[in-house]
Amino acid sequence: MNVERARSIMEREGLDGLVASTLENFFYLSGIWNLGQELFPYDAQAYVVVARDKPDAGLLAVSVGEADLTLEAYPTIRGAITYGTFYRELPEGTELSSDEKHVWDITYNRQPKADALEALCAAIEESGLSTGALGVDERGPNRELLDQLRARFPKLDVRPASQTFRHIRMVKTPAEHERLQGALRATERALQTTVAAAREGSTERELKHIFEQAIVEKNARPGFTLLRFGRGMALGQVAPGDTKLKKGDYIWFDVGCMYEGYRSDIGRIVSFGEPSDKLRRYYDASKGGQSRAFELMTPGRAARDVFNGAVERVRELGIPHYRRHHVGHGIGLEYYDLPVLNPRTEIPLEAGMVFEVETPYYEFGFGGAFIEDTVLVTDNGVKVLTELPRDLQVIGA
Amino acid sequence: MNVERARSIMEREGLDGLVASTLENFFYLSGIWNLGQELFPYDAQAYVVVARDKPDAGLLAVSVGEADLTLEAYPTIRGAITYGTFYRELPEGTELSSDEKHVWDITYNRQPKADALEALCAAIEESGLSTGALGVDERGPNRELLDQLRARFPKLDVRPASQTFRHIRMVKTPAEHERLQGALRATERALQTTVAAAREGSTERELKHIFEQAIVEKNARPGFTLLRFGRGMALGQVAPGDTKLKKGDYIWFDVGCMYEGYRSDIGRIVSFGEPSDKLRRYYDASKGGQSRAFELMTPGRAARDVFNGAVERVRELGIPHYRRHHVGHGIGLEYYDLPVLNPRTEIPLEAGMVFEVETPYYEFGFGGAFIEDTVLVTDNGVKVLTELPRDLQVIGA
Repeated sequence: MNVERARSIMEREGLDGLVASTLENFFYLSGIWNLGQELFPYDAQAYVVVARDKPDAGLLAVSVGEADLTLEAYPTIRGAITYGTFYRELPEGTELSSDEKHVWDITYNRQPKADALEALCAAIEESGLSTGALGVDERGPNRELLDQLRARFPKLDVRPASQTFRHIRMVKTPAEHERLQGALRATERALQTTVAAAREGSTERELKHIFEQAIVEKNARPGFTLLRFGRGMALGQVAPGDTKLKKGDYIWFDVGCMYEGYRSDIGRIVSFGEPSDKLRRYYDASKGGQSRAFELMTPGRAARDVFNGAVERVRELGIPHYRRHHVGHGIGLEYYDLPVLNPRTEIPLEAGMVFEVETPYYEFGFGGAFIEDTVLVTDNGVKVLTELPRDLQVIGA
Repeated sequence: MNVERARSIMEREGLDGLVASTLENFFYLSGIWNLGQELFPYDAQAYVVVARDKPDAGLLAVSVGEADLTLEAYPTIRGAITYGTFYRELPEGTELSSDEKHVWDITYNRQPKADALEALCAAIEESGLSTGALGVDERGPNRELLDQLRARFPKLDVRPASQTFRHIRMVKTPAEHERLQGALRATERALQTTVAAAREGSTERELKHIFEQAIVEKNARPGFTLLRFGRGMALGQVAPGDTKLKKGDYIWFDVGCMYEGYRSDIGRIVSFGEPSDKLRRYYDASKGGQSRAFELMTPGRAARDVFNGAVERVRELGIPHYRRHHVGHGIGLEYYDLPVLNPRTEIPLEAGMVFEVETPYYEFGFGGAFIEDTVLVTDNGVKVLTELPRDLQVIGA
């Protein structure tokens, strides 16, 4: 996590502390990928309470069944208060390993609280945060949480903080860059594997399957695999079907995965056989708009200026009627992290942000044009992280 | 979807209609797996509005970018009202296929509404549901939704309905049984593939990788892969690591996946080399408890009676100190569907319900005992859907 940034944003917003309640924010503040939150998003409650001076030294409030996961926490985490019921027995005389001892201590050294709210309130009190201003991620499963905390701590100013978390997470650390690159590498390798396997008569469904197998091969988790042939791209979210690849078609990829909690989202068009003039012209216009976005993505530039410049360039280069609602977005623990490169967003770019940049075009009866790449904003402009060639790829010609 | 059940539960609760707002309930009422809701669970709003007399003839409120997904809706769905901005161009003179025509009509025949709330309100009005009692799934991304609807429709009794949806979804249809079997088959085949690949010196991480590749091979999506050796089972949620398999250890699996929206969650212990007496005794006690649960799972039996009988049997058979908080749960669009087989749940079992049944035991320094299987409740008792052998499997002996 970005400790300095978390601290300075809490200072700017006048917050004495923060409480994470969603899978992503819990992971961000604790280092723990809490499977329960992933599998039971409407029910599983888990919290991290941090104070402004030490954002990486949180106190956890977790179900006793998740005590084992505390082994994966940042070493700076101060401990855990548990709630609920889960049985791990300890016969007399058992010699415990250090990991087992740790989990035993968390599980039984202190009586688990009756429920998640009790555990969270205890963690807030022990963190010295029961007065002052506390930002609470309001998007966790307990919809009444903020009101319950207000009732419990009348002197506490409880504020919704999901947007605060998103602002903290906007600027990534080197460790996050590495994981984002892991997700990206898996995705582009899988795309290459799929392209290498494409043959006359391959179906969309077959190629999707090859793609997702390659994602898992790289220790990543399939996220979304939009893969259609030719004009099917204009109806791109429909599941890949039995359409067969034929000469003159192209393969459209808009694909992403998850690797160690971090996401990817890239895209390409690959022509199967010689591309039509129109496809080449439109692809080059789309790529040119993306290139223009890259040029504009320097620290301090407002997101909307990147949008405006990219859209204008696509129009100049060959799609005069081009319209679009955004030309990219941050990527991180969510597929869309802030900021989004759209006409309304004034957030200025900062070094360390990672974006997916795209200028897609969709047309009924034709399909469209598409290229989407991952870039890191640096002090000297963007570094393109994708290693795939950006020119229109042609196979089977 | 279970049309009769949806209608009768709405009748019982005095509801004139229902609104789905989460990925699972949207899918249940529409037949559409809405990728946006999966990828952007905190932001993507999509709704289905149904009236009590025709629960499968819903009206959709979706973003205009998702208009293509309406191609995957139940044929009985009445239509869609869109909101927001997304561009798919249509040059003059383009000849449209029937699918393209359908999406074009939904996208442009009617001006998209300004936002999701406007689209939903229009769908409620067009469904004749702006007075009376409307159950609204309160677990979608818009946390203010119920209050906003109350403000908009002062004569409408707006009630939270996420539990209503869970009660409707408890009893599965034959089409759902088929998908649940698809998820189960993928999982048990992957488990067998993994067991066949296990060698002295295999690591947990390697076997997890083999398991997840096999899941994708079967066109399913990895969900969770808890896989530890021996005593590691007691800390089972920690990610599989570099521990090497050696003679006398056992492999613990608690694994699940998603297939066409439906989940699986099964488990086994596989002994690598001759099992210890203790493992054999504890495994047989756990399996015996599960068998007792099977015997008790007849229509009309309260969930808690299944729990009590199973726990008692494990104690009788060899783990006298056995404690547990539940012995299974429904399975469906969520990993835990209702009802849960725990000491508090009085819900009576019904034919058509599908359960995961388990009597796990965890012990520090030892590991534990575990078997979890999928069963269908029928008029004549349970039908075990898992095809894996239930006896303790021994390999490498």
